[in-house]
Amino acid sequence: MCEACGNSNHKKHETLPRREFLKEGGASVLAAGAMMGTSAAAKAAPSEGKMVIGKEPFETRAYAAKSATSGFSPITITRRALRPDDVLLDILYVGICHSDIHAVHSDWSAAHYPIVPGHEIVGRILAVGSKVTKFKVGDIGGVGCMVDSCGTCENCLDDREQNCLNGTTFTYDSPDKISGGYTFGGYSDRMVVNERFVIHIPSQVHLAAYAPLLCAGVTTFSPMRHWKLQKDQKIAIVGLGGLGHMALKLAHSMRADVTVFTTTEGKIADAKRLGASAAFLWTDKKAFERLTNHFDLMISTVPVSYPMQPFMNMLKLDATLVNVGALGELTGGLSGMSNGFGRKSLAGSMIGGIAETQEVIDYCAARHIEADIELIKPDEIDRAYERVMSKDVRYRFVIDFASGKSA
Amino acid sequence: MCEACGNSNHKKHETLPRREFLKEGGASVLAAGAMMGTSAAAKAAPSEGKMVIGKEPFETRAYAAKSATSGFSPITITRRALRPDDVLLDILYVGICHSDIHAVHSDWSAAHYPIVPGHEIVGRILAVGSKVTKFKVGDIGGVGCMVDSCGTCENCLDDREQNCLNGTTFTYDSPDKISGGYTFGGYSDRMVVNERFVIHIPSQVHLAAYAPLLCAGVTTFSPMRHWKLQKDQKIAIVGLGGLGHMALKLAHSMRADVTVFTTTEGKIADAKRLGASAAFLWTDKKAFERLTNHFDLMISTVPVSYPMQPFMNMLKLDATLVNVGALGELTGGLSGMSNGFGRKSLAGSMIGGIAETQEVIDYCAARHIEADIELIKPDEIDRAYERVMSKDVRYRFVIDFASGKSA
Repeated sequence: MCEACGNSNHKKHETLPRREFLKEGGASVLAAGAMMGTSAAAKAAPSEGKMVIGKEPFETRAYAAKSATSGFSPITITRRALRPDDVLLDILYVGICHSDIHAVHSDWSAAHYPIVPGHEIVGRILAVGSKVTKFKVGDIGGVGCMVDSCGTCENCLDDREQNCLNGTTFTYDSPDKISGGYTFGGYSDRMVVNERFVIHIPSQVHLAAYAPLLCAGVTTFSPMRHWKLQKDQKIAIVGLGGLGHMALKLAHSMRADVTVFTTTEGKIADAKRLGASAAFLWTDKKAFERLTNHFDLMISTVPVSYPMQPFMNMLKLDATLVNVGALGELTGGLSGMSNGFGRKSLAGSMIGGIAETQEVIDYCAARHIEADIELIKPDEIDRAYERVMSKDVRYRFVIDFASGKSA
Repeated sequence: MCEACGNSNHKKHETLPRREFLKEGGASVLAAGAMMGTSAAAKAAPSEGKMVIGKEPFETRAYAAKSATSGFSPITITRRALRPDDVLLDILYVGICHSDIHAVHSDWSAAHYPIVPGHEIVGRILAVGSKVTKFKVGDIGGVGCMVDSCGTCENCLDDREQNCLNGTTFTYDSPDKISGGYTFGGYSDRMVVNERFVIHIPSQVHLAAYAPLLCAGVTTFSPMRHWKLQKDQKIAIVGLGGLGHMALKLAHSMRADVTVFTTTEGKIADAKRLGASAAFLWTDKKAFERLTNHFDLMISTVPVSYPMQPFMNMLKLDATLVNVGALGELTGGLSGMSNGFGRKSLAGSMIGGIAETQEVIDYCAARHIEADIELIKPDEIDRAYERVMSKDVRYRFVIDFASGKSA
């Protein structure tokens, strides 16, 4: 048995004959590696020229922040050798989620630097482990916020891998139970992921515009399903950013009556173009007053604490405001009296399970829904972060790792 | 038509012949008035000796706070003449709710002094208006937190009079649309209420111990119904006071598995005696940790803002913490991350509609459930307030207005 990869057919996989390697997808790996033509690509195979990528831990290029204030620079990270149920993903596109920025800045908890964010990942399958059944080489795969869970606890069995009782492994800066250390995310050329956590992406869609669906899409889709948004119901979307514009598109596709609340005057027209029947600024107190007891459901995509009661006041009796963006402490005071008499709920919801992530991809593919994106190069991440923080993005930055790779 | 009461059978009801008065329940009024034997009772009929109580506005004794710090003293207030759908209630017992104390202290909003609190009222029907159908003289009636609503809006028609779109009239310190000024509550000898807002109380029950069901009972019963508490589900009751001990009794009667969290060590044994399978102090951090993701439902009866996240952490996925006691601003920070990943909800619920209030009375009567009370005299209200604030009550003070009246 190989000491490095556990394969019982060879002892040292550096010497793996070309024929055997091809059987396990090595040809695609080779092809992709040759076409990348970058120094990082050249480093990807530790024993260059011996065609062993994926057979043992390998190095790949990633963009990392070395501190909360360092900005991003390319580094070389190591990905694990493919295990039987792993796939090797040649990353093409990765979205920039506001939570990446929070994580890099240690806003919620101390990050482990260098941190490589990225959990809206679309790539091409370069190689598959011996027991992989969901994918074949050449397929397009997506990875969202999770890369592993126990698979056996009641929550995993209930398709809620994000609540694994034995600890979900998140896509980045999460304790890596397989390789040790902390996981590296998708701001990278390649990654290795258990096939259970890879989503099928139809190859004919606009791949870059599908990356955001892996987080922004499922995060907004999931509460609409859980709280049973119905046709003609009135839903408010608070915040029109990456998550908000997906929420708007999804709710509109469900034929709900969508109202958007934004802090940016320039987004009012956009909201209507994207399907909102109405859009208001947060400063529009008359609209808030007029819409008292109006909404069946409200989804707030605001990524920080904000004054919640003015929004709660616009909920109908028994209705719910769901925060899907704010992961820090919510300090906005709530009125016990008003919410009590209206029997209103303040809830949270985060991402969704793997089955639900697949569902949102399939849902969007069937309805030609995709994110509105702005494609950037990997060396433009710092500038993109600044623009996200100043709300200057329409509506998701996606980093292009595809250039120079096979289409 | 009488200018004072609108009765077309006479012009001035001061001169109403005894025979006609008897037809409308005047005999009972007379009997009760005679038996009271107090100066207040003597004042009750403005035209003493003419047996017209209820036929025109009348004076009655009440206990009022004249300022936030004045304490209580008896005053004379005026109750309106009976309208066709009104009943006149000879008050026997009235509970002291913690919200009475908040109202008197202007904790939530500026009270209109003199304020006469009291919204857990049990009394005997002394007289009924000409169109009253629900009650006859001699019946026992209960009044909770509301005394009027439009009766025609969608919320009223949906048995949610507490959310009347045209404005619920609450039992005390609420704009009185009929008589002007602000309503006076149940710390009083008599009151006049529209029969729609009077609850049937079985005459054979322990009447004083049923007064608290009109607020504490329905307030805790309603969320158990709305959130569908089931047999064997795990419910936590936070706070073991007037509301908390009713919540415990009710949840136990539904065969749920009840855990109590209290700040008072002396209440641990009580909680178990009343049906809790476990009871813990708020300081018992090990219990909080052990009970992470444990509860299907949590009802907090705490009447002020408190740190909510440690309790939210004990909810199962998708579960709800319902605040039923805190009507002020809830300032306790919430973790967006924790609640989001657990898809947990923080909700509020207040009292219940009239039908649901009748339901809890009937429910308790069928199961021999009543409040644990300590009966006090009207001149002991100030001391009772102090003891409620220092958590020294097991578990509801009820003011005895029955002494000296007909049983």
